[in-house]
Amino acid sequence: MNHPVSRRVDLPLDDCCEQGMANSSRTLFILSDRTGITLEHLVRTLMTQFDDTCCERVVLPFLDAASKVEAAIREIDAAAVEDDAPPVVFSSIVDEELRARLMTANAQVFDIFDVFLPSLSAAIGRPSSGHVGLSHGMGDPRVYDQRVDAVNFALNFDDGSRLRGLAEADLILVGVSRSGKTPTCLYLAMQYAVRAANFPLTEEDFMLGRLPDALRENRDRLFGLTISPDRLHRIREERRPGSDYASLPQCRNEVSAAEDLYRSHAIPFLDSTSVSIEELAIEIMQRVGVERHY
Amino acid sequence: MNHPVSRRVDLPLDDCCEQGMANSSRTLFILSDRTGITLEHLVRTLMTQFDDTCCERVVLPFLDAASKVEAAIREIDAAAVEDDAPPVVFSSIVDEELRARLMTANAQVFDIFDVFLPSLSAAIGRPSSGHVGLSHGMGDPRVYDQRVDAVNFALNFDDGSRLRGLAEADLILVGVSRSGKTPTCLYLAMQYAVRAANFPLTEEDFMLGRLPDALRENRDRLFGLTISPDRLHRIREERRPGSDYASLPQCRNEVSAAEDLYRSHAIPFLDSTSVSIEELAIEIMQRVGVERHY
Repeated sequence: MNHPVSRRVDLPLDDCCEQGMANSSRTLFILSDRTGITLEHLVRTLMTQFDDTCCERVVLPFLDAASKVEAAIREIDAAAVEDDAPPVVFSSIVDEELRARLMTANAQVFDIFDVFLPSLSAAIGRPSSGHVGLSHGMGDPRVYDQRVDAVNFALNFDDGSRLRGLAEADLILVGVSRSGKTPTCLYLAMQYAVRAANFPLTEEDFMLGRLPDALRENRDRLFGLTISPDRLHRIREERRPGSDYASLPQCRNEVSAAEDLYRSHAIPFLDSTSVSIEELAIEIMQRVGVERHY
Repeated sequence: MNHPVSRRVDLPLDDCCEQGMANSSRTLFILSDRTGITLEHLVRTLMTQFDDTCCERVVLPFLDAASKVEAAIREIDAAAVEDDAPPVVFSSIVDEELRARLMTANAQVFDIFDVFLPSLSAAIGRPSSGHVGLSHGMGDPRVYDQRVDAVNFALNFDDGSRLRGLAEADLILVGVSRSGKTPTCLYLAMQYAVRAANFPLTEEDFMLGRLPDALRENRDRLFGLTISPDRLHRIREERRPGSDYASLPQCRNEVSAAEDLYRSHAIPFLDSTSVSIEELAIEIMQRVGVERHY
């Protein structure tokens, strides 16, 4: 039989692009000797600059031994064959020998230590240590315990069940039910060891015509959340379909009463409708002036 | 009066180091047009390679207008004067004009888009868009809602109060009280939209001599946590000082019974004593084979 001879040519990347292979799919590997969380964030940020359909992502954490790096290389090389294009590899492996092995993979490797450490070391005037990093390890156990304590604090205050400790809170999020207080408090606790309490505003509070006593005593640390009545309605419908609680008029009334309360007591507030937990957390810390513990 | 004339000489960085200024403190700025979370992670990872005492860090998020960037530049220039050394600046600002302004600061600037985008664009064969990234914004609202749902799921299952829904869980963390289940479940939910349920093992379960029914029906998704009795004792002492619950013998018995249960039912488990929530989460997802939704 007479097959046409096919030979795979490994073109340099720039040539690939010039030759119109721009839309071939490429696999994007994220390799780390620890969790890989840092690199995942970085890659996600960088990839916001490209269209979504670009690259399948594979995260390979805990690559802390030669055998594990070899297995990763086999996976990378297999993807190169399948995609007919060398994968893009982001690596935060610290060990020199493991990094050298990785360079044998059929891939375009971005090693973040290679990229940054030489010039960073020059900029701060200190040599780098070469130790495996633990940016998502326990780090300082005291700080770590503060994070876990803060999570427990947020859980204990959830739904305002323990008013008496509000004085201990770094900040107090107020808002109507399902306006985003709980996830935001938990995120602040988990990531920044901020003790955030959660105070739900109810019709009783609105009828009172003034700030509830528990809040008045802690005015300097209050932050309000608001939300569009439509979105609140949809969220509450999932929880209690067809209820008064979830009805659009009820949501409209509560949101409007909460915003009136914020305005009349000069409580800073944000609309959580189209803002992520992360964005809320960072902006709230900045505006309340909370010290980050992590 | 006759003061000696002092003149500040702006040495290039390499010269500074050679001249023994290696231990002068430098301020490290993290600048972003959004939350800055990605850069904070990256800088934390990079700085694990230097000693701890190196640099005070200042995070300036939401720099999305010329006036805000100008204010940041004033802060950077002031730090340069105070430290008598140009600050190190990490920036993930996307807008070209704002980036150009930033370059007028008296600083060593690491712009992660400048660093990565040209070669990444070549590697994947696509142009970059130049749009402000939203890697910590809401992104896909459906995915975002999954994260919030997963947080609520974790909260509802906290302390095993709602057994009937275990079947809906992506994974079920089991362990004695205060072994780290709750923060880990919440982290999995918040970061990866994984629906993680929390099942506390009690003496009742240990006396049963077999897996509780609710767990037996969901064996494929069980993952155990264990902890050193000493650390458990210290954690419980903070919660209920002097109680039987917190006593060292009680902690020893419970931990040993839990580990026996894991081994006899081939439930994979990890020791949370010196492992962070992030590390637990990543390793558990990998070992249970949970699909990440984010």
